[in-house]
Amino acid sequence: MKIYKKAVLPLGFKASGISCGIKKSGKLDLALFYSDPPAKAACLFTTNKMPAAPVVLCRRSLKRNNLFKAIIANSGNANCFTGVEGLKDAQAIAGNLAKILSIKKESVLVASTGIIGRKLPVAKIESGITDLINELSHNGIDKAKKAIMTTDTFPKEVTVKLNIGGKIVTLCGVAKGAGMIAPNMATLLAFIFTDADLSKDLLNKLLKDAVDSSFNCVTVDGCMSTNDSVMLLANGKAKNAGINNGKNLKLFKDALNTVCLELAKMIVRDAEGASKFIQIKVSKAKNPMQARKAALAIANSNLFKIAIYGEDPNFGRIIAAVGASGVDALERSLKIKVSPLKRQDIFVDVALGRGSSSATVYTSDLTPKYIKINAKYN
Amino acid sequence: MKIYKKAVLPLGFKASGISCGIKKSGKLDLALFYSDPPAKAACLFTTNKMPAAPVVLCRRSLKRNNLFKAIIANSGNANCFTGVEGLKDAQAIAGNLAKILSIKKESVLVASTGIIGRKLPVAKIESGITDLINELSHNGIDKAKKAIMTTDTFPKEVTVKLNIGGKIVTLCGVAKGAGMIAPNMATLLAFIFTDADLSKDLLNKLLKDAVDSSFNCVTVDGCMSTNDSVMLLANGKAKNAGINNGKNLKLFKDALNTVCLELAKMIVRDAEGASKFIQIKVSKAKNPMQARKAALAIANSNLFKIAIYGEDPNFGRIIAAVGASGVDALERSLKIKVSPLKRQDIFVDVALGRGSSSATVYTSDLTPKYIKINAKYN
Repeated sequence: MKIYKKAVLPLGFKASGISCGIKKSGKLDLALFYSDPPAKAACLFTTNKMPAAPVVLCRRSLKRNNLFKAIIANSGNANCFTGVEGLKDAQAIAGNLAKILSIKKESVLVASTGIIGRKLPVAKIESGITDLINELSHNGIDKAKKAIMTTDTFPKEVTVKLNIGGKIVTLCGVAKGAGMIAPNMATLLAFIFTDADLSKDLLNKLLKDAVDSSFNCVTVDGCMSTNDSVMLLANGKAKNAGINNGKNLKLFKDALNTVCLELAKMIVRDAEGASKFIQIKVSKAKNPMQARKAALAIANSNLFKIAIYGEDPNFGRIIAAVGASGVDALERSLKIKVSPLKRQDIFVDVALGRGSSSATVYTSDLTPKYIKINAKYN
Repeated sequence: MKIYKKAVLPLGFKASGISCGIKKSGKLDLALFYSDPPAKAACLFTTNKMPAAPVVLCRRSLKRNNLFKAIIANSGNANCFTGVEGLKDAQAIAGNLAKILSIKKESVLVASTGIIGRKLPVAKIESGITDLINELSHNGIDKAKKAIMTTDTFPKEVTVKLNIGGKIVTLCGVAKGAGMIAPNMATLLAFIFTDADLSKDLLNKLLKDAVDSSFNCVTVDGCMSTNDSVMLLANGKAKNAGINNGKNLKLFKDALNTVCLELAKMIVRDAEGASKFIQIKVSKAKNPMQARKAALAIANSNLFKIAIYGEDPNFGRIIAAVGASGVDALERSLKIKVSPLKRQDIFVDVALGRGSSSATVYTSDLTPKYIKINAKYN
């Protein structure tokens, strides 16, 4: 397995990104991802009870349809809390794109990210669609990855290549994050493309596993978004041997896990206003759920995050967070280790002394800059 | 019922506050509250699984003993995560005080607040005890209320007087808050004194009810403390008629609720770095638990709190918080009203449109100053 810190689309995929005027700044704000061969899709969405219109529409399309050709994603507007109109807007965009591409409208997935509660500027998006299609290319991913960004300061991208039975299989992922990041799912938007050939059921299972140990293990601010979507398209163009069996399955699984974990870590590293990247490992827990619960309790403690920002060894806040989480722990068996605070990457190890399970989560510090960014979002 | 925004001790109570050197600043850091007649006590403590030593000791004393004479409280050190030694330290202080006062050591309650994980400077406290006793007076509450403060910028104090069957009954409460404030319990330390005469069972029941709708309805940072304690002493010196019956019970209950709610609101008003006082009412919920859950989800959302700080009407964050809380709500029936953001007191009304229950919680905004205060706590 080779890992590249750059998005390189697998065989049969194209992408493009343009500025259609949603963002006042004139920055890129509309992305298209396209697969020549119809692709199998596995998708996971926010569990927020107020899902955005594109999430609602994608869930419907995934029920009605098996193969997908395109994902259209905009930044600058979440199309959330926009009611029946919002859903119609998302449908109109998918329909318009499908018509020009001469494909079924159900084979188009849609995603939005940005401010909540404002009507999507559909006319702007629709006027950009022809351009977006005309710009489609293998290298267009370089613009597409930027067009999904909101407060991100750099694009999140990774490519993994592996050899399955003599054939090169590629996985490529791009993501945007920055704020309103919490499990489940802690992602905002992630799009992963592979030319691997594998069954839809396996694709779904592997994506769920990969997301559980990556996007669902990062938290920036404990605020769960209404728009979180992870979409994985597999178009089979690598013509690899079956990956149902032991060795090939493990190879592909590792590659997909790597793509998701790398993107998730990049999201934490680029968290709004963050100055530190923090890895929290909780071990010797009674069970995996308790390990995860304790780790997330620490990661979501404002006081802990601020102590790390201030390089203040106030580890009482770790103890208070573990205690408040309600997990099984005893003062006398609790062990805490924290790496030197002057560094940018901080490692926190907490052993609960109550069992043998562990969990690792990733977070950032809480800084005045995070407040500045979010106090005037408009 | 008359309400005074100042602490005036009821009959038979005295207090004092001194500086014994726990705080480097030389500010008051040790308080004593004393009742001439042995008093009945009702106490509620943090549900944090890592309770501080004084909490552990008080729980024991409350099991073993029925009448109480004194509460000794220090600020500047939480005596938490201090192991067996910490418990011995708390016992030594209670024992030493009891010896000098010639009372049973089980009749002394103890409380601590401040930094977690550092050994309590017992020698400093013990050397101050004689002074503390010599300073006891009815007006000593003015120093005692300051001696329990940590990052508080003003003392929290309230007195309520009411007439029960021709006798004046007084309730007086003092509290400290400022940070690490979240249900249950959202208080850090609150001490309430009354000269009312009522049964211990009733005292316990009334305190629990009062705390549920006051201290347990405020959140500053969602961080539950290890030291939260609410202590209520009733010494019977008002010699009032029984307050078991309808009218007198209602009078006393209202008075106690008022004391707790006023103190709780003051804690929010003096939240670390806060520039806004925010009341969040969730109505038309399926049941009271869901109303409270939704209200607290909004109150604990960093992004919501920062929007209020920035006077940015980004109400999508309210929607995202309600949706993330998992309570029963539907986009089309959700109604949100927010009072003008330029003011200091902000009122948020959210109607879920799913039932007839409601809940009100209180919180503050999240500001760069909160981060500044907590980045260098030592």
